[in-house]
Amino acid sequence: MQKKKKFQKDSEHFYIVESSEKDGFKLKGKIWIEGKEGTFLGIGRAQLLEKIKECKSISKAAKTLNMSYKKAWDLIDSMNKQAKNPLVITKVGGAGGGRTELTEEGEKILNQFKELYEEFKKFLEKEINKF
Amino acid sequence: MQKKKKFQKDSEHFYIVESSEKDGFKLKGKIWIEGKEGTFLGIGRAQLLEKIKECKSISKAAKTLNMSYKKAWDLIDSMNKQAKNPLVITKVGGAGGGRTELTEEGEKILNQFKELYEEFKKFLEKEINKF
Repeated sequence: MQKKKKFQKDSEHFYIVESSEKDGFKLKGKIWIEGKEGTFLGIGRAQLLEKIKECKSISKAAKTLNMSYKKAWDLIDSMNKQAKNPLVITKVGGAGGGRTELTEEGEKILNQFKELYEEFKKFLEKEINKF
Repeated sequence: MQKKKKFQKDSEHFYIVESSEKDGFKLKGKIWIEGKEGTFLGIGRAQLLEKIKECKSISKAAKTLNMSYKKAWDLIDSMNKQAKNPLVITKVGGAGGGRTELTEEGEKILNQFKELYEEFKKFLEKEINKF
């Protein structure tokens, strides 16, 4: 079996997806996309993108997720730097004094990740039934 | 999104399976079966079963995996207690002074887990190509 032992410090790796229970057992798993600089997108980061889309503000999104502004900003920065084009942009000025939005690429990747997440749940559900 | 934040202490959770690289990105994941008492079977435990099958000895299997005898024994004990029937048995006495073997159930579950692992690799490979 191919394997790699590695301790993952980054807290957003610790989101566990699970199947339903079968005979007292559940299949559990984690999934994320890694780029050259480490994590690019996982469940935690996808949640952050989702909240930014809703709130149009990094600070509001961070608050909803009980995350510091700095942490949220660092995660966005990490995603923006690793993606071909930024996923999140902040437009300064204007009526509301500036707002943060997902770019077209941000929307696309978020949707793809949500699909991946759904496929992963289906996968776990299908596989637990083989045991 | 359904999610659960939980720090996993058990070292055998930290085996990461990964897809091949696509445009600088890889899809990574972990997978394991959880029973009522916590982890039942993951990549680390499956490896231990595999080695016991090969070596017919807990101490030799543990040594090959750079694992203490106690750790190996604890993992086996945890699997044996959670499964309907033990996965590993030790037959005392006889010509070689006793040997440890996988039971029929142990063999079956190990094979099922190996299949799951292969399916998971295929899943990651298929999904990375959607991005």
